[in-house]
Amino acid sequence: MNAPPKDGRVRVVIEKVEPCVDGGRFAAKRSLGETLCVQADVFADGHDAVACALLHRHESADTWQCVPMTPLGNDRWQAVVPLTRLGRCLYTVEAWIDALETWRLDLLKRQAAGQDLGVELLRGAQLVQAAAARAAGAEAQQLEEWALTLADESLGLEPRLAAAQRAPLHALARRWPDREQLRRWEPTLPLEVERERARFSSWYEMFPRSTGPAAGAQGTLADCLARLPYVARMGFDVLYLPPIHPIGSAARRGPNNRPAAGPGDPGSPWAIGNAAGGHKAIDPQLGTLEDLRRLVARAAELGIEIALDIALQCSPDHPYVRAHPEWFLKRADGSIQHAENPPKQYPDIYPLHFDSPHWQELWLELASIVEFWLEQGVRIFRVDNPHTKPFALWEWLIARVRRRCPEAIFLAEAFTRPKIMYRLAKLGFTQSYTYFTWRNTRAELEAYFRELRAAPVREFFRPNLWPNTPDILGEYLQFGGRAAFVARLVLAATLGASYGIYGPAFELMEHVAREGGSEEYHDSEKYQLRHWELERPDSLRELIALINRIRRENPALQSDAGLQFHRTDSDALIAFSKCAPEAAAGSGG
Amino acid sequence: MNAPPKDGRVRVVIEKVEPCVDGGRFAAKRSLGETLCVQADVFADGHDAVACALLHRHESADTWQCVPMTPLGNDRWQAVVPLTRLGRCLYTVEAWIDALETWRLDLLKRQAAGQDLGVELLRGAQLVQAAAARAAGAEAQQLEEWALTLADESLGLEPRLAAAQRAPLHALARRWPDREQLRRWEPTLPLEVERERARFSSWYEMFPRSTGPAAGAQGTLADCLARLPYVARMGFDVLYLPPIHPIGSAARRGPNNRPAAGPGDPGSPWAIGNAAGGHKAIDPQLGTLEDLRRLVARAAELGIEIALDIALQCSPDHPYVRAHPEWFLKRADGSIQHAENPPKQYPDIYPLHFDSPHWQELWLELASIVEFWLEQGVRIFRVDNPHTKPFALWEWLIARVRRRCPEAIFLAEAFTRPKIMYRLAKLGFTQSYTYFTWRNTRAELEAYFRELRAAPVREFFRPNLWPNTPDILGEYLQFGGRAAFVARLVLAATLGASYGIYGPAFELMEHVAREGGSEEYHDSEKYQLRHWELERPDSLRELIALINRIRRENPALQSDAGLQFHRTDSDALIAFSKCAPEAAAGSGG
Repeated sequence: MNAPPKDGRVRVVIEKVEPCVDGGRFAAKRSLGETLCVQADVFADGHDAVACALLHRHESADTWQCVPMTPLGNDRWQAVVPLTRLGRCLYTVEAWIDALETWRLDLLKRQAAGQDLGVELLRGAQLVQAAAARAAGAEAQQLEEWALTLADESLGLEPRLAAAQRAPLHALARRWPDREQLRRWEPTLPLEVERERARFSSWYEMFPRSTGPAAGAQGTLADCLARLPYVARMGFDVLYLPPIHPIGSAARRGPNNRPAAGPGDPGSPWAIGNAAGGHKAIDPQLGTLEDLRRLVARAAELGIEIALDIALQCSPDHPYVRAHPEWFLKRADGSIQHAENPPKQYPDIYPLHFDSPHWQELWLELASIVEFWLEQGVRIFRVDNPHTKPFALWEWLIARVRRRCPEAIFLAEAFTRPKIMYRLAKLGFTQSYTYFTWRNTRAELEAYFRELRAAPVREFFRPNLWPNTPDILGEYLQFGGRAAFVARLVLAATLGASYGIYGPAFELMEHVAREGGSEEYHDSEKYQLRHWELERPDSLRELIALINRIRRENPALQSDAGLQFHRTDSDALIAFSKCAPEAAAGSGG
Repeated sequence: MNAPPKDGRVRVVIEKVEPCVDGGRFAAKRSLGETLCVQADVFADGHDAVACALLHRHESADTWQCVPMTPLGNDRWQAVVPLTRLGRCLYTVEAWIDALETWRLDLLKRQAAGQDLGVELLRGAQLVQAAAARAAGAEAQQLEEWALTLADESLGLEPRLAAAQRAPLHALARRWPDREQLRRWEPTLPLEVERERARFSSWYEMFPRSTGPAAGAQGTLADCLARLPYVARMGFDVLYLPPIHPIGSAARRGPNNRPAAGPGDPGSPWAIGNAAGGHKAIDPQLGTLEDLRRLVARAAELGIEIALDIALQCSPDHPYVRAHPEWFLKRADGSIQHAENPPKQYPDIYPLHFDSPHWQELWLELASIVEFWLEQGVRIFRVDNPHTKPFALWEWLIARVRRRCPEAIFLAEAFTRPKIMYRLAKLGFTQSYTYFTWRNTRAELEAYFRELRAAPVREFFRPNLWPNTPDILGEYLQFGGRAAFVARLVLAATLGASYGIYGPAFELMEHVAREGGSEEYHDSEKYQLRHWELERPDSLRELIALINRIRRENPALQSDAGLQFHRTDSDALIAFSKCAPEAAAGSGG
């Protein structure tokens, strides 16, 4: 502490580089077609001019791209670069004192004040000479000549003053700053560049087993394929299927979540695994892997991607239970611990035991599940209850998958406390379920979306708005009639660049909840087959198609940036506008 | 990236530890008698209970003090510790999953639901047994016994359930958490603990040479000593003297900053150095080192500290110029570069050349100036224009001085752009001049003080409010009459825990500025001697004494925390309140 620090002559300061999530611990998120707008506070002591540049590169590239930053006023600087390559990028800011620019500006002031300029021109020559010494080849030569001109008293004042202001020569000299006096922001910051659908997507959730041709008939993946044109006509581009794996029979739940299933009851698709297989198998009642691949391919022809559910839990019949008892918690009485949230008990589910000494093998197996479905052509995953598995698992798993397949998209189904939801988004989840489902009044909606659009949340949290899900039939929809369904649909589809509905329950305005103040659907598809009258004349499907077309035609609706709320005379009216990202870029969006 | 990370089983997360200045790059500031209130977001996946603790220690201590944190709701936790030792402290947060507490809470829920508890008691016994294995000595023994009780089925259920809820045993077990699953926040954060006057101070600035007994007579340090009772009666506790060093005669400025001084003109005290000495000498016309030490001692008896001016620049006559020409910039014509801000020229000042190859020797010499005055008993320094010297110099110099003398206080006289002022405060300046001098309307004052009280600014920037300085006679005082002086005095003394006035110009309501819209005083003391009629009946000195007494009697006015603005019906009225720090602590102040 007694000796001056080695870098005591580096006079420029960099502060508050943005975007920045938790000091660079996590990546900011962007998508192809968007820009990266980096801002930083850059200044120095005294009156010298400073200069700075944004450095950026793809993780896999060896060299930095360097983009000059421009001043915004109040010592804030900015550079904007387009994003054209998927994957992890890195960026930082470099800054330095621009002695030559300081000199050039001062020279103009001295000229205007009629001061003596001879000595100043010699000083400029020294500065240019120093730049020449740092430069290479022809550029060094050019700078040498410039220095000679500035210093050549035989030329008289005028030509030397003109030379002093030659912009191309200044630009040239700026390419050779004194690197000893250069400061670089630490740490380098990460950026995750995803594909467009990470930012803009319209989801439709549907239970495959309810797509059968007649009431009571088991639906199959082939029936789903036949249902694709119906989904495409409504304009959705993601079709999300709840788990399609074999379903356990031990402690199977009956209709309306009754404790005991009858012989014909299909059970919950989230009670995964039986003798026919686990997370890498398809329920034989639904079809085969080949059926799934066919569904994926046909959907792609219609502009739709199939999203699968990743629910990392097992039925007591799951093959893991016998093959890997070490992945489950054994109780003091030798039984395996089933899921519970005391006093609630879920005997049809065995949670994985992440504190197991064999946790690393477990993690690798879980990653292999996602990789298995990637191999079948699936690129989008809706992750069930990620907040009940270790945070570190998700960060590792998503990064691992994305290195292999940067197109992969993960939607976090975490309806839990706000900081946990944000943490999951920071860890890498592409999109997140939100509290939108319970935000109904104007004040609630405005406050919530302002929170989501504030820095740094907007940098890492991409909301996906759902008016309903198989788990949530909100009061507003239960009692609001058709108008409520229309309002919630329009809000979801215009407040958010990504939204989804659980259908056909939504377009058919299914609104009867289980008794007792529940948000659960009566006769929920989670526990029984349903047959839906898709062609019912009061269906909202045409309205949905219209809204999705408007979304496709208006770039403003394809981004969460540029959302603005406006005043209305009544609290029963909400008014907001969105503008396209180009127009919003200036405001840091 | 392919193998799971080593710490994959550490499930707890820590985020947003506060106070935190630039990610821990700089210290938060507190003073003796204040508390350190640390908050953090702490949570984990799933439903397990978490626990966390604040770790803190003085920089010179080897071991951490550990204070349990308590939940505030929404996953925010807090601990508060009193600060009793001067100097640099460190702090961080540790968190862990509290498996035993989770078990205890779940057990209560299971009991209430009438569930089977036998197996659960065995699980508790296992958890306690694991804690016993980590514990030492008698505590291990106690935990062993507890585990045996929980597991002993021969006792029947009731005594074991009672044992399960024994608070002292839980507290004991909590002392032996599973350190493998413990997370500690990185980096450790610094805290600078200063003495009370860093937080609460009342400054009076006075030119020693104007304290002579009669008009035109050169004042001396002995005259200053005679003036002390006058200053003490007004209730000030810091008496700040502009530079008291020998003054250069080369290019000396005349009255009202005229380019050429007459033979009797004293010159500016900031043109430091002549043949009689430089920054470590006292102008012989003012007195001797012995006079200064006597002034410091007598002031201390009256509760006043003497503050000196640190102005790191030289007159052309300064001994450094001949002894160390390498510390000045030589121009292309061989002359030494004088101060300038083109086109403005300051030929009576040579700036130090911090880009000199000999900058390290220069820094050491500058530090030795401060150390020299420390040896004379001075502890408070007002630093002139710190923003025109390298930031790194101040960070190094202040840290060096404070290690040697943690009582040292530095006031930054940087009237410049906001980010530069904040940077200087982060680097270690105890207090800072502010824009208060130009904030007159209610809207201006409210906006500015809200900015200063927002995190993180409030953590490192201690405002010192000056209604006037020898450089600044604002328009409001020039034209507002007595009411303006009273208003600005009361605002400064109640909005800020630290404030100061430049007297006797202030209490005598000197308000005539140099012509042409200037904020410079007419016949400024900077360039000539003034004689002040201290006993003028309209003097504000009694009002000042009253206000300073109110400040001393009311702890709410001795801290910048607890400031609140209130609504008034007129924009010409400002209303605010302050509450004492104890009451404000809950709100993060």
